[in-house]
Amino acid sequence: MELNEFSLIDRYFKRQSHYRQPGTLLGIGDDAALLTPGVGETLLVSVDTLIAGRHFPHQTSAADIGYKALAVNLSDMAAMGATPRWITLSLALPHADPQFLQPFSDALLALAAEYQLDLIGGDTVQGALAMTIQIIGSVPAGQIPLYRSGGVVGDLLFISGSVGDAAAGLQAVIAEQQDELSSRLILRLNRPTARVALGQALLGVANAAIDISDGVVADLRQLLRATGCGADLWLDKLPISEDLQRLPLAAAEKLRLMATGGDDYELLFSVPEAHRAQVEAIGQTLHLPLTAVGRLTEGADLTCWQKGERVAPKWLCRGGFDHFAAAGALLS
Amino acid sequence: MELNEFSLIDRYFKRQSHYRQPGTLLGIGDDAALLTPGVGETLLVSVDTLIAGRHFPHQTSAADIGYKALAVNLSDMAAMGATPRWITLSLALPHADPQFLQPFSDALLALAAEYQLDLIGGDTVQGALAMTIQIIGSVPAGQIPLYRSGGVVGDLLFISGSVGDAAAGLQAVIAEQQDELSSRLILRLNRPTARVALGQALLGVANAAIDISDGVVADLRQLLRATGCGADLWLDKLPISEDLQRLPLAAAEKLRLMATGGDDYELLFSVPEAHRAQVEAIGQTLHLPLTAVGRLTEGADLTCWQKGERVAPKWLCRGGFDHFAAAGALLS
Repeated sequence: MELNEFSLIDRYFKRQSHYRQPGTLLGIGDDAALLTPGVGETLLVSVDTLIAGRHFPHQTSAADIGYKALAVNLSDMAAMGATPRWITLSLALPHADPQFLQPFSDALLALAAEYQLDLIGGDTVQGALAMTIQIIGSVPAGQIPLYRSGGVVGDLLFISGSVGDAAAGLQAVIAEQQDELSSRLILRLNRPTARVALGQALLGVANAAIDISDGVVADLRQLLRATGCGADLWLDKLPISEDLQRLPLAAAEKLRLMATGGDDYELLFSVPEAHRAQVEAIGQTLHLPLTAVGRLTEGADLTCWQKGERVAPKWLCRGGFDHFAAAGALLS
Repeated sequence: MELNEFSLIDRYFKRQSHYRQPGTLLGIGDDAALLTPGVGETLLVSVDTLIAGRHFPHQTSAADIGYKALAVNLSDMAAMGATPRWITLSLALPHADPQFLQPFSDALLALAAEYQLDLIGGDTVQGALAMTIQIIGSVPAGQIPLYRSGGVVGDLLFISGSVGDAAAGLQAVIAEQQDELSSRLILRLNRPTARVALGQALLGVANAAIDISDGVVADLRQLLRATGCGADLWLDKLPISEDLQRLPLAAAEKLRLMATGGDDYELLFSVPEAHRAQVEAIGQTLHLPLTAVGRLTEGADLTCWQKGERVAPKWLCRGGFDHFAAAGALLS
């Protein structure tokens, strides 16, 4: 089956009975899409690229790739407390393979529909499998988004859900484990849930937020760099899932996965002590555990604590994953 | 020299004493950038990906790559009559090489400054050399952008500047020609001029416009598909540069380059006969040749004419370049 660039876009990406955002004047099909934002609305713009073998294992299914490519961008909107509204997709493919394109576009557009997202443009090129999604969201007039830099000394640090599952899932992929427990962990790697509703609920409650893409330690360091604060991180408070608990690994290894494993896409956010009850209420409303894991401090140091003792695990200095500092490809 | 992802962004892309668009609340450095568009302003969003060996020859200099990556996106704004305002950059690099990054970012940011563009975000990943730029522009409240679909039967078709030089430049690159004439043609391939001022001047004058990225015939077909019109194309009126004229090639081959060669990034636009004088005035103001090359017709056919005779050159059915229909890589 031969597909040219135009029929490819028409067939797989423009077919949508899809949601049209209020404010979309023109979607796919011209030199640019046209939007009219509401009066006083602040727009938020973010972009993320995923490359096969680097951001997901080569053996990842087309559907999982389509889902994840969008989920990581939704997560950026979540971290700002924004409502995601529009996306563009640039897709590089070795060849126009319907067996890839159908499940890829199905999964991507299904997730887009869940969030009433409007796919307004894109580009398809021949090349090694990679995709760049740009997402545009908004916060209503008068609302202040969740900046990374908004944290204040004394703020409590919270993490949503649990951390470490995606990193354990990656290990399971590499080891080719296919048992039920491994499958659930791999699902958390391939189908992360962006905490969009949580981000929106935290507007006016949290002082700062970031999504955990590179690992708790690495992303906390980013937050600290932006706030100019230091932090205490209570390692024994890091939220662990039942699945990770049940995994036959040493406790220290589980802790390493939780503290440095990437790809969980939970939110890490700082909240004034006075808003603690509000955070608890939000967690109950969303049926989402929100766990206090530390506090912003004077200075610039990140200090880890375990059972009241100061600790300095070996992995602390390394932090999380960095694309260019990493010696080689994470996945092969 | 080792660079991690964060110092890479800081050093090469955030260093700017760069222009800050009115309406930019937050640029690079958080999970998303923040914009506040003006009241009633229409935003235009477009995205283009360039892959080494496909959209530019591997031997292209880093500076030329940086320039062209932005220029092709500016051209999408030009084709809509929009004022380009914000960009994001996603850059995939095999390794964080300062000898690439310095000239690449210098050229890209210099061109951005020329258009008072604000680089508000991006992503850097390890991978084969490729880049995706998303551009956001605007037209003032009450102005209607140049849609592809706005053409009307009877409209004159115009082309700006000249066509075919970039395709001749590509042939010169492949043949490793380094004479002065070849160098000028290669410059048109590597440093296309987006017709931004022309696009803006055509608001309210032209009915439809598209930029010529894939070749006159291929892009005219796109315009026809959008308008639902056919067209007469006067091949002997296609504007040729002095350089292409001087090239020792058969006339038929020059014509093929002009009609099907991509990468010129001139504008092809349709104008009511009554606006012909306005188009001439715009050309004089901008010191840019604007040449009538055909007319929109009833039906859906593209008919080529040469010296008053209907002709059907062999290349007519093939049209221009298509990433996926092409048998293999254009460049190697």
